[in-house]
Amino acid sequence: MAIPKPVFDPPFNVVRFSHLECDVVDLEEAGELYRDVIGLAVSSESPRGMHLRGMEERNHHSLVLRRAQAPVARALGFKVHGKADLDRAEEFFGARGLEADWVERSRMGRVLRVRDPWGVPLEFYAEMDRLPPTHQKYAAYKGVKPLRIDHVNLFMPDVDSAVEFYAEIGFRITEYTEDPESGRIWAAWMHRKGSVHDIAFTNGKGPRVHHIAYWVPSPLSIIDLLDIMSTSGHLEKIERGPGRHGISNAFFLYVRDADGHRTEFYCSDYLTVDPEHEPIKWDLQDPTRQTLWGAPAPRTWFEEGMEFAGVEPVDPEFAGTPIIAP
Amino acid sequence: MAIPKPVFDPPFNVVRFSHLECDVVDLEEAGELYRDVIGLAVSSESPRGMHLRGMEERNHHSLVLRRAQAPVARALGFKVHGKADLDRAEEFFGARGLEADWVERSRMGRVLRVRDPWGVPLEFYAEMDRLPPTHQKYAAYKGVKPLRIDHVNLFMPDVDSAVEFYAEIGFRITEYTEDPESGRIWAAWMHRKGSVHDIAFTNGKGPRVHHIAYWVPSPLSIIDLLDIMSTSGHLEKIERGPGRHGISNAFFLYVRDADGHRTEFYCSDYLTVDPEHEPIKWDLQDPTRQTLWGAPAPRTWFEEGMEFAGVEPVDPEFAGTPIIAP
Amino acid sequence: MAIPKPVFDPPFNVVRFSHLECDVVDLEEAGELYRDVIGLAVSSESPRGMHLRGMEERNHHSLVLRRAQAPVARALGFKVHGKADLDRAEEFFGARGLEADWVERSRMGRVLRVRDPWGVPLEFYAEMDRLPPTHQKYAAYKGVKPLRIDHVNLFMPDVDSAVEFYAEIGFRITEYTEDPESGRIWAAWMHRKGSVHDIAFTNGKGPRVHHIAYWVPSPLSIIDLLDIMSTSGHLEKIERGPGRHGISNAFFLYVRDADGHRTEFYCSDYLTVDPEHEPIKWDLQDPTRQTLWGAPAPRTWFEEGMEFAGVEPVDPEFAGTPIIAP
Amino acid sequence: MAIPKPVFDPPFNVVRFSHLECDVVDLEEAGELYRDVIGLAVSSESPRGMHLRGMEERNHHSLVLRRAQAPVARALGFKVHGKADLDRAEEFFGARGLEADWVERSRMGRVLRVRDPWGVPLEFYAEMDRLPPTHQKYAAYKGVKPLRIDHVNLFMPDVDSAVEFYAEIGFRITEYTEDPESGRIWAAWMHRKGSVHDIAFTNGKGPRVHHIAYWVPSPLSIIDLLDIMSTSGHLEKIERGPGRHGISNAFFLYVRDADGHRTEFYCSDYLTVDPEHEPIKWDLQDPTRQTLWGAPAPRTWFEEGMEFAGVEPVDPEFAGTPIIAP
Repeated sequence: MAIPKPVFDPPFNVVRFSHLECDVVDLEEAGELYRDVIGLAVSSESPRGMHLRGMEERNHHSLVLRRAQAPVARALGFKVHGKADLDRAEEFFGARGLEADWVERSRMGRVLRVRDPWGVPLEFYAEMDRLPPTHQKYAAYKGVKPLRIDHVNLFMPDVDSAVEFYAEIGFRITEYTEDPESGRIWAAWMHRKGSVHDIAFTNGKGPRVHHIAYWVPSPLSIIDLLDIMSTSGHLEKIERGPGRHGISNAFFLYVRDADGHRTEFYCSDYLTVDPEHEPIKWDLQDPTRQTLWGAPAPRTWFEEGMEFAGVEPVDPEFAGTPIIAP
Repeated sequence: MAIPKPVFDPPFNVVRFSHLECDVVDLEEAGELYRDVIGLAVSSESPRGMHLRGMEERNHHSLVLRRAQAPVARALGFKVHGKADLDRAEEFFGARGLEADWVERSRMGRVLRVRDPWGVPLEFYAEMDRLPPTHQKYAAYKGVKPLRIDHVNLFMPDVDSAVEFYAEIGFRITEYTEDPESGRIWAAWMHRKGSVHDIAFTNGKGPRVHHIAYWVPSPLSIIDLLDIMSTSGHLEKIERGPGRHGISNAFFLYVRDADGHRTEFYCSDYLTVDPEHEPIKWDLQDPTRQTLWGAPAPRTWFEEGMEFAGVEPVDPEFAGTPIIAP
Repeated sequence: MAIPKPVFDPPFNVVRFSHLECDVVDLEEAGELYRDVIGLAVSSESPRGMHLRGMEERNHHSLVLRRAQAPVARALGFKVHGKADLDRAEEFFGARGLEADWVERSRMGRVLRVRDPWGVPLEFYAEMDRLPPTHQKYAAYKGVKPLRIDHVNLFMPDVDSAVEFYAEIGFRITEYTEDPESGRIWAAWMHRKGSVHDIAFTNGKGPRVHHIAYWVPSPLSIIDLLDIMSTSGHLEKIERGPGRHGISNAFFLYVRDADGHRTEFYCSDYLTVDPEHEPIKWDLQDPTRQTLWGAPAPRTWFEEGMEFAGVEPVDPEFAGTPIIAP
Repeated sequence: MAIPKPVFDPPFNVVRFSHLECDVVDLEEAGELYRDVIGLAVSSESPRGMHLRGMEERNHHSLVLRRAQAPVARALGFKVHGKADLDRAEEFFGARGLEADWVERSRMGRVLRVRDPWGVPLEFYAEMDRLPPTHQKYAAYKGVKPLRIDHVNLFMPDVDSAVEFYAEIGFRITEYTEDPESGRIWAAWMHRKGSVHDIAFTNGKGPRVHHIAYWVPSPLSIIDLLDIMSTSGHLEKIERGPGRHGISNAFFLYVRDADGHRTEFYCSDYLTVDPEHEPIKWDLQDPTRQTLWGAPAPRTWFEEGMEFAGVEPVDPEFAGTPIIAP
């Protein structure tokens, strides 16, 4: 598929991916992992859940954990520019016959909850409680020193179509993998905020959340987290890394919590604000796209993801075989 | 002065600060410094000058050095979103009786050269030659591993008014220093691209360029540059640093070339894309705003800057005294 | 002075500098600084004092803080190879008419307390309580992640003689500064353990302790400490740094506690175990020996030190003028 | 086996492991790898071979590459304290009926070439040409910024006996792996110079060289090398890493040249000079000893090594199964 042209006057103005809401079975254990080990700041908590954020975030939260019977992803949160964008978004989704409802969310103004064509629950909002800056409260940094949420990555059963849909609402491709035989897009990275991505799609049974990612100060922060996790009872939660993705240039580490939610910690992507920013195309056969240095990734990383509440994932139309590095 | 509200529908759409053009007396010496010591990539060169860029830049250049009899700053380059923005900019500056001319520039499409109310020569363009990505040509990284140009910092004789003017064309304040007695703005950091700044103003004899800045991968890159410069005959070009600014949170180093052009190498500022992003106000009496760790800065750093060709700097209206850290 | 030849069969076998015992006025404040901010581990504490150590140290302590009416240095501790070395040391000091007494020290076997010719109280021991390794207890690392004590640096009134005396007991010179006019040694770095130094001497009113030093993992650990101290009420305790010494190649930071005890945090010196290891000679006029990058050091750093209990410091015989970097 | 007591008065005084001499088939290719990619300094070269060293080494060389028809390890070089130690070594090996010959080596004084009981060719010397310090020639640092050779690691068919033999000549154990069933030592790390090791032995078909190791400034230097190798045609030479060994605490990367010689780049082990330094015992079943963070190592790393010229390796007596991390 030819990748779509960037849309600079989208139907509504999304600023960035801003938060994930998800269910966890053992809230205490999850709290310990995200707060004490990883180092996210707690904005609020109750017996029913926790709101967390990175050290430079002024938004009240970028991760919402809810206590539940089973793990599931509940919603992907996106900040829009202003309240009028919410009405425009409602109109856009309504015109396409897609679900769009106004919902109540703690610490936020009006929230529009919609479903994309694959059922992914997106929540758009313009206002969230804001907190005073903490990025210079250096004594409070811990773990991997998480600074801010960066993106979400989804398994999708039809990446070509997902790219088309998200391009229409203003997401711009920065890098993508193409299957040379079929010409289909195997995976794509799309942004609103001027980095490599706010959202990415990979061919696979979906929709499912592959991971969310937090930006960290340096590769050494990630090495610190590896050392901490491996010597304080969290070794088995280290899934993949450290490494560098060819795609996005990210120095990465993937961690999975006890419920299977996957978080990437990463740094060193690049600025993409130029309107003519040329997408980088990778060949599906090029193993360095996944892992510049050639180290293998575990099978779980390629196959496992988190379902969205009430959405049955479907197998991909395109049953190509991902290259799993040696 | 109350800081101006952000303008989200400016008269024309500036994407980011993109380059500095300046004159140097000894082009060979300057070339050695910027290319061999600092590590910028050479995009093109001739006996009359050089075009250089950072390792992740696809724009043909972010620094233009021209051989001349005396050092001077020639122009600040800003990328606009599209060609129509150039016409809108022409209209905007014309309507205010400010100079605005179409000029020819190497490797660029139409270029609109204007003067801001203080005479600062701004050059707006939508198109520049683009080069293939080099951010993963790791064997070519050298020196401080400069990645991309980030901002320009100017001495201005009336920061209040400069802030008002640049706010009108869409620059948004992220941090500022206020003089508690007069209520005037002493210094301000304003952005377009979602970082702490594209342009900053400090009260002083102006307009003059204080510095341009390149973004680098980590504090260790800056330590490498210090070690290289101090042991290869460039010790005297190290002006200030390493240190951390309270304002912007930047880990910094300032280098001055043989002609007095100052370049900052820095990392670790933060994302500012949220429309409601609250500016941080610093007190002029707070020494940590300049230097979080308390180390003194040399007097040259507070006083010396580079004039623009043909623009006589004037003393500031507001003769407050900057706090020079102990 | 010609520097002395290394003595490979000294009268007794010193393994390394191992600890400082000193008095502090406000033990709670000192405890907070060394434990919570700097990150040393507490081995034992009581209302009268604290024993602390670095994260890789198995010796019970490398820093002993005692509550007292006034700050003072009490003793420099050196580990010797075996018990027989203690008797040989007693003999050596006795033969020179120097004070040598057996004293009781908490957590240690026999301790021989002597005075060097300038009155410096040295305590030699072969046995100290040993603790289980903690270098891989990564969740317990804090602050600057101090790993191990490295050396002590003293002001001495006659460095030539101090070098001769310490060379006789097996300390070997790695680097030194010579006054080109008098030919006298201005400062010297001497080791036993295979690094640049266990003890160093600088010309000045003495004997006084200039500083002790802890080895840390990387320059980024030191940047972390600067960020923490400057934003948690300890800004004024940052005395000098970050920087790199020409001598020893150390990346350094100097911190002074509320009582004036100075601690250096440093990394990146080099291995010196080769018997023929050639000392590096620096010229007193070369400013890069103190500070490779040219940043000035505060006057306090050149002038202030901590006296030893009961030892009146004397002015140096050689009243040269140190080069204080610009 | 009970690990042997440290021998503090060995028959001759070995200072440290100092160099490897080996044969390579394509000298030009090897030269490019070690010099241009890895960043070792060339001390001398000819059509027949190259001598290389790390940036802080004053010894003329730590790696000798000789052009040959087939790759092989030729000798492990150890520096002894003085010439008398060479005679004592000759006596020691002679008394045991082991081969001991005086040989000529370029840039070195008298060299005693011996065979240990397994045929490993050891070359002892007291004098090698010394070069001026280059550790502060920062502009000359490249690649991984290799500082100094640190150790050699061997496959041995009988680690219990190897440990006994090397302990007798003064090598002291710092860490070891024991097979809980047989009580035999599976692997051992032994030092002379005060670090975790100068030589290590692992159970396996041997004697064969597993790797030599260079000490580097920081984990970021290793990440730089990974980025450089993977994007400049040397991806397939990256064998394992980055990672952290539980044993020795080393942050590591293993690289194999075109001939199969393996080099480790590493940092962050610890000081071991205390005479009572307690060895750390690891269980063969504990996967974190090999790899603290749990990432798998390739089979080649566990199985492949370089033979010594003229020495037929034999299978280990103890056919236990190493734990290969998942």
